[in-house]
Amino acid sequence: MTSLLKTEASPYKEIDSETDKSTDVVWHLASVSHQDRVAANGHQGAVLWFTGLSGSGKSTVANAVDKMLHDVGAKTYVLDGDNVRHGLNGDLGFSDSDRIENIRRIGEVAKLFVDAGLLVSTAFISPFAADRSLVRELLGDKPFIEVFVDTPLEVCEQRDPKGLYKKARAGEIKHFTGIDSAYDVPASPEIHVQTANQDVQQCAQQVVDYLRANGLMS
Amino acid sequence: MTSLLKTEASPYKEIDSETDKSTDVVWHLASVSHQDRVAANGHQGAVLWFTGLSGSGKSTVANAVDKMLHDVGAKTYVLDGDNVRHGLNGDLGFSDSDRIENIRRIGEVAKLFVDAGLLVSTAFISPFAADRSLVRELLGDKPFIEVFVDTPLEVCEQRDPKGLYKKARAGEIKHFTGIDSAYDVPASPEIHVQTANQDVQQCAQQVVDYLRANGLMS
Repeated sequence: MTSLLKTEASPYKEIDSETDKSTDVVWHLASVSHQDRVAANGHQGAVLWFTGLSGSGKSTVANAVDKMLHDVGAKTYVLDGDNVRHGLNGDLGFSDSDRIENIRRIGEVAKLFVDAGLLVSTAFISPFAADRSLVRELLGDKPFIEVFVDTPLEVCEQRDPKGLYKKARAGEIKHFTGIDSAYDVPASPEIHVQTANQDVQQCAQQVVDYLRANGLMS
Repeated sequence: MTSLLKTEASPYKEIDSETDKSTDVVWHLASVSHQDRVAANGHQGAVLWFTGLSGSGKSTVANAVDKMLHDVGAKTYVLDGDNVRHGLNGDLGFSDSDRIENIRRIGEVAKLFVDAGLLVSTAFISPFAADRSLVRELLGDKPFIEVFVDTPLEVCEQRDPKGLYKKARAGEIKHFTGIDSAYDVPASPEIHVQTANQDVQQCAQQVVDYLRANGLMS
């Protein structure tokens, strides 16, 4: 809010710019800083960026983490296909440029939530390392925590909760991640969740433990 | 999160759909509902949509409201040019279609913040009634509170905190609201703030009083 203070410092009262003192009683213009929000919430703001194949359990683990954090009083939110695809990104299709723009906007919105002091989880396949790097960069000094939800393709395809793999194998869906489109395995994710070895609660606990171990919450 | 529960109800365990009971011990998939967030915050989520001429004091009043709400423990955020124009909407220019898209995206992001249980203030000129109506509609059953920051053009032009009116009068800026582009005065805003009669704190108090009177916070 620095520029606000700079450019609209005193629309209501005259300030003597020479002495930086008001010629009248000035109502001090105030805004809530990121640090104020963090202090009130009792934890840092951060993005938990879940990435993995369709059916890997991204949304499930993200929501379990969200619940676990909410239950200890943290301020949280989840961005996923349900609340983003038909709203903010409802104008985007599946071309390469739209795919990049989809991830960029999610990153920018996540950044706003982090600025607001929330622990925000995003659950999108986000198959390309370049797109994930773009989000990490735009977050700047705000914590970007990449959570690789690592579930073997065979397991995802067996689960196939939405019947999408079946359609992709039948050629009804083109460019389906893991079938005829690549998934760039994260090279060095902050958190590597292997769903084959643990149940959902254990996966979620692993994420929460990371936040605690890294001083993002107590 | 209904569709999440519907489509990814059990990626980890087999559920007997006939009896809706697990064939094994099921870890109950949980997600945090909007009502859970509202209950934890102790107030409703809502958009305070500040509209008014450049220099009317939108950002100033919005930030004062935000501070007042934050100081009583509410969970809040402000969306304004500082955090939206160069981020999420950095790809947009000033054409008619970009202008509409700018407001639409801000509306969609505000909706996500409301869903997260926050009292989110937006501070954009948003001169056209049609654009503001679009946002009101996309908010659906979520509270959309239009706050008309009513400051006479002469006063705004006299303040001219960013020197924009001067440039507009000199023809250096085209399509400037109030000079050579229309401002649709809100026909029936929820809150009508008249900055000529009150100082910033009184304006902010008027908004907070509205929230209390309408059961959005205690």
